[in-house]
Amino acid sequence: MDHLLDRRRLLTLAAMASAAGTFPVSAKEQDAAPSANPLAIPADAPRITMLVHPRMVLLDLIGPMTAFNILRTHIDLVWKDKTPVSTELGIPVTPTKTFAEADEAPDVLFVPGGTMGTVDCMNDPEVLEFLRGRGEKAGWVTGICTGVLTLAASGLLEGYDATANWVHADLLPLMGARRVNKRVVTDRNRMTGAGVTAGVDFALTLAAELRGEEEARRVQLILEYAPEPPYEGGTPEREPELAAALRARTPWMREQVENASKAAGQRLAIGK
Amino acid sequence: MDHLLDRRRLLTLAAMASAAGTFPVSAKEQDAAPSANPLAIPADAPRITMLVHPRMVLLDLIGPMTAFNILRTHIDLVWKDKTPVSTELGIPVTPTKTFAEADEAPDVLFVPGGTMGTVDCMNDPEVLEFLRGRGEKAGWVTGICTGVLTLAASGLLEGYDATANWVHADLLPLMGARRVNKRVVTDRNRMTGAGVTAGVDFALTLAAELRGEEEARRVQLILEYAPEPPYEGGTPEREPELAAALRARTPWMREQVENASKAAGQRLAIGK
Repeated sequence: MDHLLDRRRLLTLAAMASAAGTFPVSAKEQDAAPSANPLAIPADAPRITMLVHPRMVLLDLIGPMTAFNILRTHIDLVWKDKTPVSTELGIPVTPTKTFAEADEAPDVLFVPGGTMGTVDCMNDPEVLEFLRGRGEKAGWVTGICTGVLTLAASGLLEGYDATANWVHADLLPLMGARRVNKRVVTDRNRMTGAGVTAGVDFALTLAAELRGEEEARRVQLILEYAPEPPYEGGTPEREPELAAALRARTPWMREQVENASKAAGQRLAIGK
Repeated sequence: MDHLLDRRRLLTLAAMASAAGTFPVSAKEQDAAPSANPLAIPADAPRITMLVHPRMVLLDLIGPMTAFNILRTHIDLVWKDKTPVSTELGIPVTPTKTFAEADEAPDVLFVPGGTMGTVDCMNDPEVLEFLRGRGEKAGWVTGICTGVLTLAASGLLEGYDATANWVHADLLPLMGARRVNKRVVTDRNRMTGAGVTAGVDFALTLAAELRGEEEARRVQLILEYAPEPPYEGGTPEREPELAAALRARTPWMREQVENASKAAGQRLAIGK
């Protein structure tokens, strides 16, 4: 009947829906809204700095990021510059902030993985220096998959329990971390997750720490996360033959991750 | 010692690793390799057409795509044109083929969700015509989350069992599908998944159909998919109060999905 009334009603309902965080809403759309608008992320919402890097496994980023977005947090995707970084799927990701622009003391620092991209990061002083600097001031220092090795190479896991992708998690002690064979490991303000799909378990665990259990359960419901894997597998313990075959077929990759871990351990003077 | 020898050894090992599919390798890199090279995806590998559309939930695409990529399949991201489509995370995705260029008879047709983007697709004759045309010739017709509603609106689920995102799955019968309250539903050559994170369960189930159980278990191990959700939630049955609150707060969204479902049902002459 009345366009103005209809529009006002729609805006009110949209604001209610978004304030309830019922569905993912683009951080950009929210940031564009005036601060008095319920569409805006609350100014005091957690600030999350997510490293993005070339040859990243995209799902390592997108699993946690989707959960953090539904949680209504401020998310920055950070790299040396704003050139899009490559991912294994051929879908590039454009950083939203450079290292220089990144928050000095984020509530959460997060590092994704991607084996050969991880090796590059582990051998890159600029990346390690950035992580160490921000990590020392961050509320939470976090990572999943091989990204945990990047964190460890920066020295941020010295003396901490941690987990990582099953293929390379045994290398963590070379860099001073205690390897714990669990899917998500919390030790003081360090939280780490196992390979790729562990990102969702990790993010929900962290969501509860940041915003409480009910918020985390709400995010889990919106993601409809009641998993039913078709096979009782997904770990080297449950799939010893497949795991042995996979390990045997990537000696060159393993060699590079191992060399990077040893070099990082020497720089950190682990065991000295 | 000898650069040529080192390089040859590295290439051989890289080829072995990739042939084993141990880690995700960019489809682009693989396509660029000569056909005699083990790095290339086998010519007879399944061809998968994944719809991408504006306001898509990125994880709806990336969960299944990551699994299909590790499975070494030919993946096309398809939309009307090659303008990047928006996602709820602010990370755009560039289509690799237009509707006109897409395979006539793909082995798999897949549709992701994203509520308001889904509504747009359900009301868009060009999208529905594309899906119906390719779906009628596809080996498998698949989708997850609200993307299943898009499939249903195209008429491809008439007389089939299907599941979808819990918020809107009850609307499927308006478009002639039988709603089955399960995480992954297979009915003849239709396979559908529930909301967002069900994409990984769906993709592994489909992987077994495409390449056999051992390949699917290998993909599950590489993804380290042995989920441990922090809460026994993730479904409206397990979280009735949270679910009721979420439903009550998005009447305007629900109204639009319902209207689009009814309109599609009328076009399909369901119940006539």
